[in-house]
Amino acid sequence: MDGTQGHLRVAMIGYAFMGRAHSQAWRVAPRFFDLPLQPEMRVLVGRSRDRAEEAAQHLGWAEVATDWRAVLERDDVDLVDICTPGDTHEEIAVAALEAGKHVLVEKPMANTLAEAERMAAAAERAAAAGVRSMVGFTYRRVPAVALARQMVADGRIGEVRQVRCQYLQDWLADETAPLSWRTDKELAGSGALGDIGAHIVDLTHFVTGQRVATVSGLLDTVVAERPCAESFSGLSGVGGTERGPVTVDDVAIFTGRLESGAPAVFEATRMAWGRKNAMRIEVNGSRGSLAFDFEEMNVLQHYDADARAGEQGFTRIIVTEPQHPYVAAWWPPGHGLGYEHGFVHQAADLVRAVAAGEQPTPSFADGLAVQRVLDAVERSHAEEGRLHRIPENTGTTLEGAAR
Amino acid sequence: MDGTQGHLRVAMIGYAFMGRAHSQAWRVAPRFFDLPLQPEMRVLVGRSRDRAEEAAQHLGWAEVATDWRAVLERDDVDLVDICTPGDTHEEIAVAALEAGKHVLVEKPMANTLAEAERMAAAAERAAAAGVRSMVGFTYRRVPAVALARQMVADGRIGEVRQVRCQYLQDWLADETAPLSWRTDKELAGSGALGDIGAHIVDLTHFVTGQRVATVSGLLDTVVAERPCAESFSGLSGVGGTERGPVTVDDVAIFTGRLESGAPAVFEATRMAWGRKNAMRIEVNGSRGSLAFDFEEMNVLQHYDADARAGEQGFTRIIVTEPQHPYVAAWWPPGHGLGYEHGFVHQAADLVRAVAAGEQPTPSFADGLAVQRVLDAVERSHAEEGRLHRIPENTGTTLEGAAR
Amino acid sequence: MDGTQGHLRVAMIGYAFMGRAHSQAWRVAPRFFDLPLQPEMRVLVGRSRDRAEEAAQHLGWAEVATDWRAVLERDDVDLVDICTPGDTHEEIAVAALEAGKHVLVEKPMANTLAEAERMAAAAERAAAAGVRSMVGFTYRRVPAVALARQMVADGRIGEVRQVRCQYLQDWLADETAPLSWRTDKELAGSGALGDIGAHIVDLTHFVTGQRVATVSGLLDTVVAERPCAESFSGLSGVGGTERGPVTVDDVAIFTGRLESGAPAVFEATRMAWGRKNAMRIEVNGSRGSLAFDFEEMNVLQHYDADARAGEQGFTRIIVTEPQHPYVAAWWPPGHGLGYEHGFVHQAADLVRAVAAGEQPTPSFADGLAVQRVLDAVERSHAEEGRLHRIPENTGTTLEGAAR
Amino acid sequence: MDGTQGHLRVAMIGYAFMGRAHSQAWRVAPRFFDLPLQPEMRVLVGRSRDRAEEAAQHLGWAEVATDWRAVLERDDVDLVDICTPGDTHEEIAVAALEAGKHVLVEKPMANTLAEAERMAAAAERAAAAGVRSMVGFTYRRVPAVALARQMVADGRIGEVRQVRCQYLQDWLADETAPLSWRTDKELAGSGALGDIGAHIVDLTHFVTGQRVATVSGLLDTVVAERPCAESFSGLSGVGGTERGPVTVDDVAIFTGRLESGAPAVFEATRMAWGRKNAMRIEVNGSRGSLAFDFEEMNVLQHYDADARAGEQGFTRIIVTEPQHPYVAAWWPPGHGLGYEHGFVHQAADLVRAVAAGEQPTPSFADGLAVQRVLDAVERSHAEEGRLHRIPENTGTTLEGAAR
Repeated sequence: MDGTQGHLRVAMIGYAFMGRAHSQAWRVAPRFFDLPLQPEMRVLVGRSRDRAEEAAQHLGWAEVATDWRAVLERDDVDLVDICTPGDTHEEIAVAALEAGKHVLVEKPMANTLAEAERMAAAAERAAAAGVRSMVGFTYRRVPAVALARQMVADGRIGEVRQVRCQYLQDWLADETAPLSWRTDKELAGSGALGDIGAHIVDLTHFVTGQRVATVSGLLDTVVAERPCAESFSGLSGVGGTERGPVTVDDVAIFTGRLESGAPAVFEATRMAWGRKNAMRIEVNGSRGSLAFDFEEMNVLQHYDADARAGEQGFTRIIVTEPQHPYVAAWWPPGHGLGYEHGFVHQAADLVRAVAAGEQPTPSFADGLAVQRVLDAVERSHAEEGRLHRIPENTGTTLEGAAR
Repeated sequence: MDGTQGHLRVAMIGYAFMGRAHSQAWRVAPRFFDLPLQPEMRVLVGRSRDRAEEAAQHLGWAEVATDWRAVLERDDVDLVDICTPGDTHEEIAVAALEAGKHVLVEKPMANTLAEAERMAAAAERAAAAGVRSMVGFTYRRVPAVALARQMVADGRIGEVRQVRCQYLQDWLADETAPLSWRTDKELAGSGALGDIGAHIVDLTHFVTGQRVATVSGLLDTVVAERPCAESFSGLSGVGGTERGPVTVDDVAIFTGRLESGAPAVFEATRMAWGRKNAMRIEVNGSRGSLAFDFEEMNVLQHYDADARAGEQGFTRIIVTEPQHPYVAAWWPPGHGLGYEHGFVHQAADLVRAVAAGEQPTPSFADGLAVQRVLDAVERSHAEEGRLHRIPENTGTTLEGAAR
Repeated sequence: MDGTQGHLRVAMIGYAFMGRAHSQAWRVAPRFFDLPLQPEMRVLVGRSRDRAEEAAQHLGWAEVATDWRAVLERDDVDLVDICTPGDTHEEIAVAALEAGKHVLVEKPMANTLAEAERMAAAAERAAAAGVRSMVGFTYRRVPAVALARQMVADGRIGEVRQVRCQYLQDWLADETAPLSWRTDKELAGSGALGDIGAHIVDLTHFVTGQRVATVSGLLDTVVAERPCAESFSGLSGVGGTERGPVTVDDVAIFTGRLESGAPAVFEATRMAWGRKNAMRIEVNGSRGSLAFDFEEMNVLQHYDADARAGEQGFTRIIVTEPQHPYVAAWWPPGHGLGYEHGFVHQAADLVRAVAAGEQPTPSFADGLAVQRVLDAVERSHAEEGRLHRIPENTGTTLEGAAR
Repeated sequence: MDGTQGHLRVAMIGYAFMGRAHSQAWRVAPRFFDLPLQPEMRVLVGRSRDRAEEAAQHLGWAEVATDWRAVLERDDVDLVDICTPGDTHEEIAVAALEAGKHVLVEKPMANTLAEAERMAAAAERAAAAGVRSMVGFTYRRVPAVALARQMVADGRIGEVRQVRCQYLQDWLADETAPLSWRTDKELAGSGALGDIGAHIVDLTHFVTGQRVATVSGLLDTVVAERPCAESFSGLSGVGGTERGPVTVDDVAIFTGRLESGAPAVFEATRMAWGRKNAMRIEVNGSRGSLAFDFEEMNVLQHYDADARAGEQGFTRIIVTEPQHPYVAAWWPPGHGLGYEHGFVHQAADLVRAVAAGEQPTPSFADGLAVQRVLDAVERSHAEEGRLHRIPENTGTTLEGAAR
């Protein structure tokens, strides 16, 4: 099941933005990392054969298919990489796992908590049979983020006391930006919350080694109505009219506590003019702080409360040294990496886990933990911000977390 | 009442940190600003004559007194500048206003909402008699902040859509830092919330021209017990023991909405290692954004969504040009100002308002509006984050706000 | 000559740091750019067959060879990509051009001015026969740098008045770092000057559209002696001793003027602790300024003297918008690129030029112009900083420069 | 001579920009620093009695005079503070010293080397009689700069290996900015070189503890002709015409070496659009680096090559802690200082030196050392950049320099 002759044969479903990033990852990972299995870009799956073929040629896949169910039955596919919108994840992932295929699913893992629960259960069953599954929270594999987690785990900032986490974008700040599947509740599940809020919840889980245990939420749709894009007319019944409603949030703010009780504040927005992809986390510990902003993705800021008096301050670590996570495979110091490298690292780590017969992270259980937080935020918002507890997120031992 | 022979004779009560800053303001303001009245540093009031005399000599006050009530009866005092802890503000301010003295009171205006309400009522009565009052939210007078407000009022970022506001400090992050009046609920009223949370609420009111209308709050005391400082033993009954409880919050997080419904998120903390005085606000509007951080106090960041395509980005305005608020009085471009200059500007503006017979801002009504928010945050926290409405903060016209 | 069946068959000579970057470029370019010819990674050439085979497998080349001269005679090779040290460039490049192969040569183009002159002459002869050549000044293809050039050419900062350009590294700041071919004059030609000084001279030529016309130079070898690396013993006769001399500069500072007379200052150093790859240029024009630092490679700073009064400042353009050079091929706004992407863009541009039968830039003539500057710096240094004129660099029309 | 009854009675000559800054210093220094002598703002001297009286009243001087020679004869003046343009410095300073008055002279100390030499000789003679003298290189007293010097002296970056130093302004970048005394060689001596180049030479001397020993210079006047300001017509015979020549440099670039041989590069310009007061120094040592930029005047950047591997980077020290130079007198951490505070510190240090009977720094000898560098730059420029040695600057022990 783990490849023929040292290969790991991949089928990728979907070929839009995420499909392009994943293709680059499968292509590049074996060129920079010594992998126990060679990923093979076997088949790209899309609904339209013509468009899939064009994509496959461009992205470098050996062949195409239009029926993902048929692909699951093939013997020459070891791993299914799911890059479709969230409303399809459960169906495909569960079927793939049941067919004995390893699964990589893009985030958010699912559109609803119930879907996520079924997926996690399926993953657990499959794991017993040696079938692996992973959620694509790729930012975990940005070297600076991985370094942050390692430093927290190593106690370099002491106990985690506080977290502030933001994901600021502006791609919907322009009110003339049209409706799309991402502004449609039926297709996307939620808006800023599920799309980018999911990232910062997972980021917090990963970096602190703790899960979010309580939340109080506030959602908003600042621009409530948008023009219908021609290509989008027909979706959700808005076709024919000139403007239609945005049915998801574009701002999601929530506060809460980690398992340890440490307070945390989160904000996800698509309305922050000038912030292009500002995914940020700052963790204040008892002996220091760490801060990251994806807009400077090769940098981690570290404040060491135990540094020499009079010389303390945030140290701007350029995370491009060979001893930093993932970096030795790449370029000399100061020669930074880009967005797609997180996907390459994800592919490499997944291949290694599959080869080693180990559980890759983030697992579907990790994805479910994120989903529980998102769900609680929505419920809290519906009840005027009343605090919601997430008992399932408490007392667990995070897989791969703090040593 | 407005001075003899063009003077404005000041009595200052209290001479600690704020007393030093206010003294510098009274001393320096007339040297850089053309004022209609010359402030005169007439009398410094303190409980201990010896220590008051030492302070008066050092800070440049003409004489000292130990009984503030007696000072209020003096004919040669026009304005009372209250720099004492918050639990004394109401008593002194109301008495001073009733004695016909103009009043400048340090923030937070009061320790409780009831006190603030009585102070605002007294201020309103006094105003009818031409007696002026002002709250010392001095950050309004940082040129970059004043520029931000002016740009919002001028519509340079369109409609306000979202606000994120933080005040991050670390002076209590060290758990060996001892108890003080600032960690004692009886004396300080609250902790991070009232001390620095008050600043960011006022900052939001000022910059956006809108008040906070609903909140959901989360308070925490991360370090719940501290050593007793020798000089502090006896306070609140902690004397004699070696450690005592911190009875105020050291982290205050709250979300909410402005009058217009725009969502906002606030965080005040004393536990953020490495953040020394990071009072920050970012306002996202429909046509741009503004961002400020006191740790770079001479800078305002501006994103203009209508700038030339391909050349957009945050512009780092160094707010030291003659056309910027307050700056013409000072130095050439690039020769920045410091913390105390906000106090100098505050003194100058107050003197001018008194001379002109106009209401200075922020008024006690403005201070009360802040206090209502703080109070609602505490009540929301006590009810697990349930949203609290502040109807009194809605529908008002902010004095001196957006045109 | 331009490939069989729409292919461009590449032979790469050398497979160290640059070989890895070039391999990634050939592999990735056709996946993100629509290219008229498909690059084919045909043959990797190295002296040791074993090591070349290992590299070829890892980097993805179809086969290996050990005799580059034999490769030049092959019909199934269209382009020779020279990634060897500078002392071999002339011999290989001239032979390749004479064999009718297109050539990409890494920078610095040559170790001596005489070599560069012969190479440029060979390139000119070859061009007449439709054979193309290019020097690998890859930083020209960083989107922010390409945008800077475009903005200068478009007159967005008016006339160029002044340039300051730095390339700061620290990889030799540690005095225990051993000798290598890069510290050996015979192999490397020069030190910081030729290695990274070459980059900033080309960067200046590219961004300003003008060549450096006069220089006054100062070279230094701050750490004059280093340990002999085991792997390096034997080189230049230092073997057997424990320490040996550094025979190249590690700091190169030079001032000068562009063709227009605009003053410029340059610094290249390997001794600046903390600066990992700080290649920086700032151009001050009559109506604004532009600034770039590779340590923030996705950002271009722009000051527009004609912006609205009171709102002027450096604008931090995040160069990740679809209208920015090269960016449309990649990811959404804010999802930055990394070091290697410049190589991908270089490969794409070269393929297109070959297919179009046009001269790619930077040409060997451009490389020669850089070499003339480096040579003049060395001669000026030898004469105590006396200004050297470079008449050949004046009055030329830069290929592909300002419209 | 050192004051009556513990006072130090000051006469200030000139009351423009520098006069305002010095007045603020004399006023404020005793309020924040415990001084052994109380400065007394006795008399302000100006040519026009009316304007001097207006200035004295505004700036807070007790009286005015129009004849500086007469002031030197007064018994009730202890110190003469010279804030006039550079062409008058020698005459006033020498006369004051000979009259037994302590002298503070603004920088540049003189317009010519000969003047500076005579001043230094006069200062040396006066010192023998207990009369003190100081040059106003006020940036030495910015806390971050003083910290930099202290860290170099303490060996925190090891041996000094390299210096890069810039002073970038843009106040003449606008070519419609009119002629003034600062663009006139007769009055100002030189342009960017003497005005701001002097600062960075002194800054280098101060921070490194070494003097500049050799230089190679390049001067330019980028905008060679400007409109005549009405108020300036008549100066230098340009009156009557509409435009006149700029007779000083507006760009000064020079390279050189410190006494130890360490290479250094300097640039002073008034043409760098967007750079308002960017006085910057970066020192690279054998074990680390330090960097300062006046546009962030409360920050010192420090790179420690001996920090923990993987956590190295530039640390942004916010120089507002009580243990930092001068800071304990002011505000809590994070409450930054401004431009004028350097003048306050300068006044305090001068008063203390006078009271202690010690030589204040920078002395006239220090000022002469700077002047020698400026003179050598001009001569080198006149000889096409040929390196000039400054033997008098070598082998000296800097007063107050590295321990």
